[in-house]
Amino acid sequence: MAGDGPIVLSIDAMGGDLGPEAVVSGMSRSAKANPEIRFLVHGPAKKLNKLIAKKKGLAERCEVRDADSVVSMTDKPSHVVRNGRETSMWAAIEAVRNGEATVAVSCGNTGALMALSMIRLRKLPGVNRPAIAILWPSRNPQGFNVMLDVGADIRADAEDLLQYALMGVSYARNGLHLKKPRVGLLNVGTEEHKGRPELHDAHELISKAAERAPFEFVGFVEGGDIPGKACDVIVTDGFTGNVALKTGEGTASLIGDRLKEAFAYSPLSRLASLLALTSLRRLRKKIDPRRVNGGVFLGLNGTVVKSHGSADATGVSAAIKLAFQLAQSGFSERLAARLESINDITWDITEDTGSDKESQA
Amino acid sequence: MAGDGPIVLSIDAMGGDLGPEAVVSGMSRSAKANPEIRFLVHGPAKKLNKLIAKKKGLAERCEVRDADSVVSMTDKPSHVVRNGRETSMWAAIEAVRNGEATVAVSCGNTGALMALSMIRLRKLPGVNRPAIAILWPSRNPQGFNVMLDVGADIRADAEDLLQYALMGVSYARNGLHLKKPRVGLLNVGTEEHKGRPELHDAHELISKAAERAPFEFVGFVEGGDIPGKACDVIVTDGFTGNVALKTGEGTASLIGDRLKEAFAYSPLSRLASLLALTSLRRLRKKIDPRRVNGGVFLGLNGTVVKSHGSADATGVSAAIKLAFQLAQSGFSERLAARLESINDITWDITEDTGSDKESQA
Repeated sequence: MAGDGPIVLSIDAMGGDLGPEAVVSGMSRSAKANPEIRFLVHGPAKKLNKLIAKKKGLAERCEVRDADSVVSMTDKPSHVVRNGRETSMWAAIEAVRNGEATVAVSCGNTGALMALSMIRLRKLPGVNRPAIAILWPSRNPQGFNVMLDVGADIRADAEDLLQYALMGVSYARNGLHLKKPRVGLLNVGTEEHKGRPELHDAHELISKAAERAPFEFVGFVEGGDIPGKACDVIVTDGFTGNVALKTGEGTASLIGDRLKEAFAYSPLSRLASLLALTSLRRLRKKIDPRRVNGGVFLGLNGTVVKSHGSADATGVSAAIKLAFQLAQSGFSERLAARLESINDITWDITEDTGSDKESQA
Repeated sequence: MAGDGPIVLSIDAMGGDLGPEAVVSGMSRSAKANPEIRFLVHGPAKKLNKLIAKKKGLAERCEVRDADSVVSMTDKPSHVVRNGRETSMWAAIEAVRNGEATVAVSCGNTGALMALSMIRLRKLPGVNRPAIAILWPSRNPQGFNVMLDVGADIRADAEDLLQYALMGVSYARNGLHLKKPRVGLLNVGTEEHKGRPELHDAHELISKAAERAPFEFVGFVEGGDIPGKACDVIVTDGFTGNVALKTGEGTASLIGDRLKEAFAYSPLSRLASLLALTSLRRLRKKIDPRRVNGGVFLGLNGTVVKSHGSADATGVSAAIKLAFQLAQSGFSERLAARLESINDITWDITEDTGSDKESQA
């Protein structure tokens, strides 16, 4: 599985704001960049075949699976779980469940995608709450930090936070190629007496786990460290993580718009913006949220990448690239192995519970 | 007291990262801009008199009160409460307590300042948890939104969130001059079924309060709405608010640095940045955190403005300007009146509990 053969990704072509056109364009870009990628594509076959035929060389890399029904952004997750068997989203997850594909990608309704993934893929042994992890532009050399949970579950107790830490470590090792990621626990201050009780318990659990797992625990971190360089993995509950993610996105977008206004203000500033075009493009590339598109569902039997609902071809391609990297590194299997060894750590920290499977991989 | 006479502000000159020099420089700027301002300045008299004498026209607007001891950034709040009687911070708050000044301003240790303010000023009748409110750059016409709590208390139940909403409304009316502020309750989605149980209860309480108070309740909002235009006042618990604030600051600072790098990249981009200097300065002015410096402690008998610890003269001056505006508008009294009427609203929403004092002011 971590070899050089073809990697099959399962793509939900429907449910994104820009329709299957954006998804197929994103697939085409990724296919060109990575010859090993193959696609199982789910959605209305006639329409998809037409779109795929327009992209040179894409058809022979795709297998289209007809699915007439689409999960809409307003569908309630519980409704989709009960009535969604005919949807492209269901089919995309099912292909991971039955082993036809390694990773599924969807731009659709996050709540429904999480609920379906939970029900169909089921949680890994020992995982209480799965989490959604994202990459966040940061001051670290790798350019990004991992943050989780950003919204799979609004609650998290100390044990959940420990599992998030370990899942985040696996993700940072496989997605960012960091050998010994530094983990921080999000709080309102770095002093040990600060914050909620479950954070103090989690601090203790994660400290202990760090003694025998391939990561360093830097302790409590603050909101400013999410884009900072104090750690590589930021662990928090899904409520706080979701608010932080959206606050960061909103702030970046406000600054971007103000920057455009500033450059459009006078003839001189318009000339300056023309001269600075390359620099501004370089900046945009560095902080463009489309290029780090893709929340990864962690803690399930199989990996699901959630692309932003409004993703265009660039965004979809970024999500596919991420799915490809994770599939290629054998991420799902490594994560499962890590969590298995972690449970031992959690419950019986003083005993040597055997080798750390992932670190040997 | 909301007249045109002199307004006395109580200034803690010590405890900031840049020392009393930055504070006195900030005072001087504010004094020049607003002839009505008078200062009670707390700190080592000899040093302060020397600094003040250097600023033209400042001495006759100041009364220096000697205080030898300083609260440091690492002092524990409980220690300061027990042993801080001789500190400049204590004296600054005491001047508000005994009515000599209307608003206190400090750059010092936030936890200690909050603890001292709680103990010495005491909570307003009916207030369970005081809150810290800040102004956040936004897409709204007034340029800023109010967010609270950003860190006075890590917990908040539904009743606390209602009180935050009402305190935030008073602040938006007096600080941003909005007649009917729109209030949003921070959550992980705008659908009514989302989020924690206390948020659903708070949603109901705030909806009911909006029927008879001068604000509009827009319901749940998300992190992206903090710098957005969906509402003017964002209500949340101090844990989430603190993380959101610091995430936003960190993201803005990362983008700012990346922008500088982009413009320093090549001779052409350096030329462009020269041409764009005015535009970039204009942008900086709009999103410079120093210009919206000042968290306001709400829910106490008296108003305390917490300036950033690292504030320079520009930052201190912004905090003093805010304190002056709040003092001038009679904010403390208005807020107390509003909360008094609100308690009736909370406990007996169906009965007409008398006039809304603030809206008549």
